[in-house]
Amino acid sequence: MKRVNIGLLGMGNIGTGTYKTLEMNRAGIEARTGLDLRITRILEIDTERDRGVSVSKDSFTQDPDSIFSDPEISIVIELLGGVEPATSFMLAAMNGGKSVVTANKAAVAANYEALTEAAAKNGVQFRFEASVGGGIPILTALTGALLANEYTEIMGILNGTTNYILTKMTQEGRAYEEALAEAQAKGFAEADPTADVEGTDVANKLAILLSLAFGKRVRPEEIPTKGISQITKEDIEEARSQGCVIKLIASAFYADGKLKYFISPTYMHETHPLAGVSNEFNAVFVKGNAVGELMFYGKGAGPLPTGSAVMGDVIEIARSL
Amino acid sequence: MKRVNIGLLGMGNIGTGTYKTLEMNRAGIEARTGLDLRITRILEIDTERDRGVSVSKDSFTQDPDSIFSDPEISIVIELLGGVEPATSFMLAAMNGGKSVVTANKAAVAANYEALTEAAAKNGVQFRFEASVGGGIPILTALTGALLANEYTEIMGILNGTTNYILTKMTQEGRAYEEALAEAQAKGFAEADPTADVEGTDVANKLAILLSLAFGKRVRPEEIPTKGISQITKEDIEEARSQGCVIKLIASAFYADGKLKYFISPTYMHETHPLAGVSNEFNAVFVKGNAVGELMFYGKGAGPLPTGSAVMGDVIEIARSL
Repeated sequence: MKRVNIGLLGMGNIGTGTYKTLEMNRAGIEARTGLDLRITRILEIDTERDRGVSVSKDSFTQDPDSIFSDPEISIVIELLGGVEPATSFMLAAMNGGKSVVTANKAAVAANYEALTEAAAKNGVQFRFEASVGGGIPILTALTGALLANEYTEIMGILNGTTNYILTKMTQEGRAYEEALAEAQAKGFAEADPTADVEGTDVANKLAILLSLAFGKRVRPEEIPTKGISQITKEDIEEARSQGCVIKLIASAFYADGKLKYFISPTYMHETHPLAGVSNEFNAVFVKGNAVGELMFYGKGAGPLPTGSAVMGDVIEIARSL
Repeated sequence: MKRVNIGLLGMGNIGTGTYKTLEMNRAGIEARTGLDLRITRILEIDTERDRGVSVSKDSFTQDPDSIFSDPEISIVIELLGGVEPATSFMLAAMNGGKSVVTANKAAVAANYEALTEAAAKNGVQFRFEASVGGGIPILTALTGALLANEYTEIMGILNGTTNYILTKMTQEGRAYEEALAEAQAKGFAEADPTADVEGTDVANKLAILLSLAFGKRVRPEEIPTKGISQITKEDIEEARSQGCVIKLIASAFYADGKLKYFISPTYMHETHPLAGVSNEFNAVFVKGNAVGELMFYGKGAGPLPTGSAVMGDVIEIARSL
């Protein structure tokens, strides 16, 4: 059995979900991969909270450098969220010779070059499957199994909050404000829903997809972005009269030889695979010049789906160590 | 640039699609991976056929051993189809130190242990993404990005011919015989459609999924299998009256702690993600205990989608050489 020690930055909901994913499936992971994965140090202030998992108090630290300089740790998982200090911590970890796994779309979108260059310079791996589509293994597919394709189009439903709101408006005739309030009550939307409903969360994800699938580096704030807060019941009805549903779609495609990209509420005809993606689910529709049309569907958020993606990246790295 | 030489066994439709996929996307593959992939020897009797690709006549051979003993070749692609001589050739290639990629579901399902053991014994890789779901990267996901999950259920639409026939019966009210004749006219069904319509093709694919996702080795002929040849217009109407469509579903799931598996025409409620998978498309629905529900959708057959999957496997192996 190959032992691999892991440092974890942040044990909020996603960090706890990642820890739980590893603990509940430890036996299977060991049997299938021969890897003994251990989260040995955790950067986290709140050491008292009951997380429903058994964590040794000795694992907690308030000193990030104690993780980056620990010669026993090979992989650092960053789940703090936000651009800083997450980016600085990831760079420090890679400069310390650790491979890094993150779910942090904001940091990856903002600092893609610096992070990927630090990985190359230090001969370590940098993976961020969980940053787009949560548990859906879309980034691994785009940069692995599908690499023999030229991608011609990507369309994604990449935000569960807005998809939940639009689904309620479509299926139950709710007004936008009612559906938003329900999403907030169910924990699918935050008290300040701006980043979700105005599309800035999706812009981070589309920026990452543009980098990986098209080699095109665009800052998220440069992506033309329209959210869903102006969508009315009448808009939903007008779409329905044309056999369509309205979805918040992140698009990238070639037209006249140029790469176009934008985020906008979009009429999707009911026969399109993305039209049936409802509630908090996400999906990514990809066209490749060999494979044709593909779609990947699943949960785009949540502690365990995100934990699945994070631990998948950890396993891929640990196998190659 | 890392040069990797490849031997190709069989240049029928799928072999030609694989060759085309590599040639049309060579520049992008080189730019993204730094790999210079070259198909240097091809086992094929028909050297005269116009395949629409430029192949040097010197590449063709009628002697498989000249490929297995070629020290310049690191990867052998097997696209002959059928259990033999394909299995013997793959074993000979691995015993000669070559990694092997195949799209051959019949050979993998029949000889899974012998093939995977030969790979382990010889320290080479054996990959077969194209054998299930054509261009859909489902096997790579199940054995890679999703490895931190315990799988609790897999349901697949794994045969494009039968899905096309059922779609025509559902959407256009055709009788089974009419829809089959149309599928044959369009090239989606063979003159003898038995392997497709009676489910034996799907049984090979489910046997492979059972091995990879559940570590359960079942011979395809041991899987309870019912095809679609007895489905009538009345059955389709009865399903519709209950808000369902009939799909040929390959299932595997746990019930009472035991793994159940079978292939059968199945009522799928219109809200299920698999219900909207129409025509010749395939899809695989997976439940993992961390990631929850996932679905992968795409073209399950055809020269270029299959070529995409084969070349994806080749790239994964070539990167690790």
